[in-house]
Amino acid sequence: MISVDLNSVREAHRRIEAAIRCTPVLTSRLLNDIAGSRLFFKCENFQKTGAFKFRGATNAVLSLSEEEQLNGVATHSSGNHGASLSRAAQLLGISAHIVMPDNAPEVKQKAVRGYGGKIHFCEPSLHARQAVLDDVVAEYGCAFIPPYDDNRIIAGQGTVALEIFRQVSAADVVITPVGGGGLLAGVALTMRALSHSTVIYGAEPKGADDAYRSFKSGVRVTEHRPNTIADGLLTTLGELNFEIIQKTVDDILCVSEESIVAAMRLIWIRMKLIVEPSAAVPLAAVLTNKPLFSGKQVVIVLSGGNVDLDKLPWLRY
Amino acid sequence: MISVDLNSVREAHRRIEAAIRCTPVLTSRLLNDIAGSRLFFKCENFQKTGAFKFRGATNAVLSLSEEEQLNGVATHSSGNHGASLSRAAQLLGISAHIVMPDNAPEVKQKAVRGYGGKIHFCEPSLHARQAVLDDVVAEYGCAFIPPYDDNRIIAGQGTVALEIFRQVSAADVVITPVGGGGLLAGVALTMRALSHSTVIYGAEPKGADDAYRSFKSGVRVTEHRPNTIADGLLTTLGELNFEIIQKTVDDILCVSEESIVAAMRLIWIRMKLIVEPSAAVPLAAVLTNKPLFSGKQVVIVLSGGNVDLDKLPWLRY
Repeated sequence: MISVDLNSVREAHRRIEAAIRCTPVLTSRLLNDIAGSRLFFKCENFQKTGAFKFRGATNAVLSLSEEEQLNGVATHSSGNHGASLSRAAQLLGISAHIVMPDNAPEVKQKAVRGYGGKIHFCEPSLHARQAVLDDVVAEYGCAFIPPYDDNRIIAGQGTVALEIFRQVSAADVVITPVGGGGLLAGVALTMRALSHSTVIYGAEPKGADDAYRSFKSGVRVTEHRPNTIADGLLTTLGELNFEIIQKTVDDILCVSEESIVAAMRLIWIRMKLIVEPSAAVPLAAVLTNKPLFSGKQVVIVLSGGNVDLDKLPWLRY
Repeated sequence: MISVDLNSVREAHRRIEAAIRCTPVLTSRLLNDIAGSRLFFKCENFQKTGAFKFRGATNAVLSLSEEEQLNGVATHSSGNHGASLSRAAQLLGISAHIVMPDNAPEVKQKAVRGYGGKIHFCEPSLHARQAVLDDVVAEYGCAFIPPYDDNRIIAGQGTVALEIFRQVSAADVVITPVGGGGLLAGVALTMRALSHSTVIYGAEPKGADDAYRSFKSGVRVTEHRPNTIADGLLTTLGELNFEIIQKTVDDILCVSEESIVAAMRLIWIRMKLIVEPSAAVPLAAVLTNKPLFSGKQVVIVLSGGNVDLDKLPWLRY
C-alpha cells in the first residue's frame, strides 16, 4: 500500500533538512555540446557519506520514537545504505548494526566502521543474511531500517526532487538510476506532484534490468542474476517502489556496460567530479538516446561518489 | 618593473568576466576535523580548461589590440597554459601556436588540439624550444604570451582573489601552490590590497623548491632540477613574480611527495573532487603544519584538475 505522497516528502525534508547537505546543481557546456541538450547535474555525490542514501536513512531514523531510537537501528547492506544508516545513527548518538556478507570489500567495511557502525558478518546468501539480521534485531531490540522498500526511505530520497524543483526552473526531464527503486520512486512521485509536464525516466544497466522488465511486463521481477559494474544497482526492485514507479515514471532506459564506463569517464574528465559507476548510468542513457533528449533541459541525478580508487573500471576495460 | 596592481586585476576581471567561470567555494566538515581549521576550497579545477590558467591566458589575449589579435598568439608549454591559451584564442576565432617538446604526453597534446591549438614540436631542450618559438613568431607574426612572467598573466590570475574576497568573508589565510609564480603573485598582491590582515602562503613541493629558496635568500634561483609528482609546478619562478611575491607573501611552505599524494587522495575521496597533484600541494602544507593554521579560516586554491586517469599516483606509490 502506497502511503507516501508529496506531503510525506515535505515532512521528511523538514525532518532531515538540518542534517543533510543541500547539494549543488552543476553544468558543463562541453557535456551539453556532446549531448545536444542542456544538462543539469544534481550532485548527490557531495551528499554526506557520498550518496543520496543518507537522506532516506536519516529520515527513517528521525521518524522513530525516542523510545525506539534508544535500542539503535539495524540493516543488511554492503553498500551506501549501511554507511548512511551508520552515520545517521552516529549523529543521534545511537547504535547501528550492519549485517554484511563476510566477503564484502574492505573499503565498504571501513566506511561503515568509520561512521561508528557495528558490523555483523554473515555468509553471502540471502538466507544467512536474514537469519543474522533476525538474531541482531532480537538480541538488541533494535529497529530494522530496510534499504529501499520502505515509505520513510522513499520519502527521504524524494527530498532530492524538492531541491531540484527549486534549483532548476522548468526541467523538461528528470532521470535517475534505478536499483531497488528508492531514489527513482521518491523523485518520481515528488516531481509528478510538483510539475505535471516533466518527463521522468529511470536508467538501468542492461546487466541488471529487473526494473525495466518489471515496468514493461507489469509484473515485478523478483529473481534475477545481475551482472554489472554499477555495484549500487545490483538489488532487486522493491514492492512499494515498483507500485510508485508504475504510476509515476514515463519509461526506463537500459544501457550497456561500455556506455556506463564511458559516461563515468566523461564526468570525471570534463566535470572533475568523482562519481561511482551507478551515478553515470543516467548520462549513459542520455548519450545512448540523444534524439529523445534533443534540445531539452535534462536533470541528471548523480547518485553517489563512493568508488575504490585502487580499482577503476577503465583500468580493467 | 612591477606594473600590476589591484586596479589592473579589476580591469582584467572586467575584461574576462564573461568568458571565465566564477568557480564555487566548497567545504568539507570531515576535512575541517582532520585539519583542525576551517577550510574553504576555491575550485579552479572547475575553471574552463580545468585550471586557473584560463584566466591569465584570456586576459592576455583580450589585452591585445584587434590588429595584434589577427595574427594569432604563440607560447611554449606542455601543460595547462598551452591548453588555456588555445581555448582563449579559439573563443576569439584566432589561431594559437603551441611549441611543445616532441616527448610531451599524448594526453596533453590532445588537450591542445581539442581546443583548436596548432602544435609545433621541438626537441626537449630550452634552447630548441626558444628557437622554434622564435621561428613561429617570425613566420606568423603572432604575439608571444608567456606562461607566467607577464603582467597580463599575473593580473588575470589575480582575479581568483577578487572572487575569494567576495565568497569567503574574513579569510585568515589564503594559500596557493607556486610554480612559475603567476597564481601566487596575482592572488597575493590582490588579497594584500583588499585585506591587510590576511596571511598569504605559497605551497611548494620539496622536490621543486626554487621559490622557497629564492624567497629565503632574497636571490631568485634560476637553475634547478625539479623532481616532483606535481607536474604543474616544475617551472622556475619568474622575475616579475618573484618581485611581487617578495613584497606580498608571508611565507612559502615546502611539502614532501608522500604528503602531496595523501592530500590529493583525501580531496578525491572526501570531497569527490578531481584535482591534479599540484592542486593538492596547499592542503598538504596545511596538514603538515597544523599548528600554524589551528582554528583559522583558511582558503585553499585548488589550482586545477587535469590528470591522466590512466596514471594515478597511488597506483605507483
